[in-house]
Amino acid sequence: MKKANKKVNAAIIIIGNEILSGRTQDVNVVHLSKWLNNLGVNVEEVRVIADLERSIVNTITQVRKKFNYIFTTGGIGPTHDDITSKSIAKAFKLKYDFHREAYGILEKYYKPGKFSDGRKKMAKIPEGASLIYNPSSGAPGFIVKNVFCLPGVPSILKSMTDGLNDKIIGGKKFLSETISVQTVESEIAKPLEDIQNQFKNVGIGSYPFFRLGKIGVSIVIRSTEKKRIDDCYKQIVNFLKKKEIHIIER
Amino acid sequence: MKKANKKVNAAIIIIGNEILSGRTQDVNVVHLSKWLNNLGVNVEEVRVIADLERSIVNTITQVRKKFNYIFTTGGIGPTHDDITSKSIAKAFKLKYDFHREAYGILEKYYKPGKFSDGRKKMAKIPEGASLIYNPSSGAPGFIVKNVFCLPGVPSILKSMTDGLNDKIIGGKKFLSETISVQTVESEIAKPLEDIQNQFKNVGIGSYPFFRLGKIGVSIVIRSTEKKRIDDCYKQIVNFLKKKEIHIIER
Repeated sequence: MKKANKKVNAAIIIIGNEILSGRTQDVNVVHLSKWLNNLGVNVEEVRVIADLERSIVNTITQVRKKFNYIFTTGGIGPTHDDITSKSIAKAFKLKYDFHREAYGILEKYYKPGKFSDGRKKMAKIPEGASLIYNPSSGAPGFIVKNVFCLPGVPSILKSMTDGLNDKIIGGKKFLSETISVQTVESEIAKPLEDIQNQFKNVGIGSYPFFRLGKIGVSIVIRSTEKKRIDDCYKQIVNFLKKKEIHIIER
Repeated sequence: MKKANKKVNAAIIIIGNEILSGRTQDVNVVHLSKWLNNLGVNVEEVRVIADLERSIVNTITQVRKKFNYIFTTGGIGPTHDDITSKSIAKAFKLKYDFHREAYGILEKYYKPGKFSDGRKKMAKIPEGASLIYNPSSGAPGFIVKNVFCLPGVPSILKSMTDGLNDKIIGGKKFLSETISVQTVESEIAKPLEDIQNQFKNVGIGSYPFFRLGKIGVSIVIRSTEKKRIDDCYKQIVNFLKKKEIHIIER
């Protein structure tokens, strides 16, 4: 895998009424973001949109030029509400028809006589797309230019991402360090801001938490440069010691 | 609360690098979507964006005219990375300064001598905004036109939404019925599509699941009209019986 020596970004598009209605808790963003971060790709936007052709076409048309990579989840199954493949074809003005290789994979996957019309639909993808192999349940995902279309079922999606590692050219990887402290945010706001102002290419995040009955703050330092994180980390630990703030974990 | 006799929609904007990086699992969308659905407001889009002024300003400017209501979460705390209030002010070209009522609430909430500069920052909100009261931790959210700004910490957010019920004029409420069956999607794809084609104002969703070692599909029927759901429901149950597909739950 070639590494681009610059920042590479991505957007994730979750396609699914069940996520929008609150019926289903999305868990794919966490998986995709961590996996992409490891490859040196920074997720800069996520959208959850409805199972509607115009939503999918408009969103893809908007985002595909803004980000290096787009990952969609959902809507590539056999039922009438699975309209991702057709909509992606429309967004790219490509034919939507049976894909020889996908058809072959599915024909082989199902027992003779079990390759029904519903299942055959999963072999219809935009013309010229390349496939994303599915080790769990046969039906492949696909890639059109910089748009990678994956299924919505988390266990199946997870089984497919590692197979994509060599198709993604990442850039500088974001590294991070976390310091969890027993305090409230307002106690550390001013010194953290002063340190942030000194480190322009480091992102310092402050996240309050309430766990096991304890109130605390996680300070997350994020950068593509290890040296900068280390310098920033030292300064934060110094002021925490000076203010006698208890460090729970670092 | 006046009820609009039409469809009312909303978008949710999750502001936070910690969600984009995959460090934190968002759970606010599920809460907000269910709460809004009960008020007759249909969430039609969700975006997760970075803690960057230009992301917030651009996103709010884009979405606020497309949806009846916008709900933001995150970025209204005391630290340097909490830039939602300032950015919303910029998006609406409003002054960003101390809000008399918010200042009063916070001054009263903290013990004398504990109302630090970091905490005072939480009283700075766009000029003319009205407040969203916070029964858990003092610091209020705020409303500018159709944009409702809430905190990111789930327990605090949850404590604030019910207080908003009379500020939201919902429309026709989406109702739903779910039938869980022991089958695979491709077995029901064709009859479900036929039924969907008969019911234009009903959304039929099909969601495969894998739980307790069982494979199944949840069929979700969604509409603003109870009668249509019932008619659609009957037809689905009929074909399931005809095909001898086991209904797990209905």
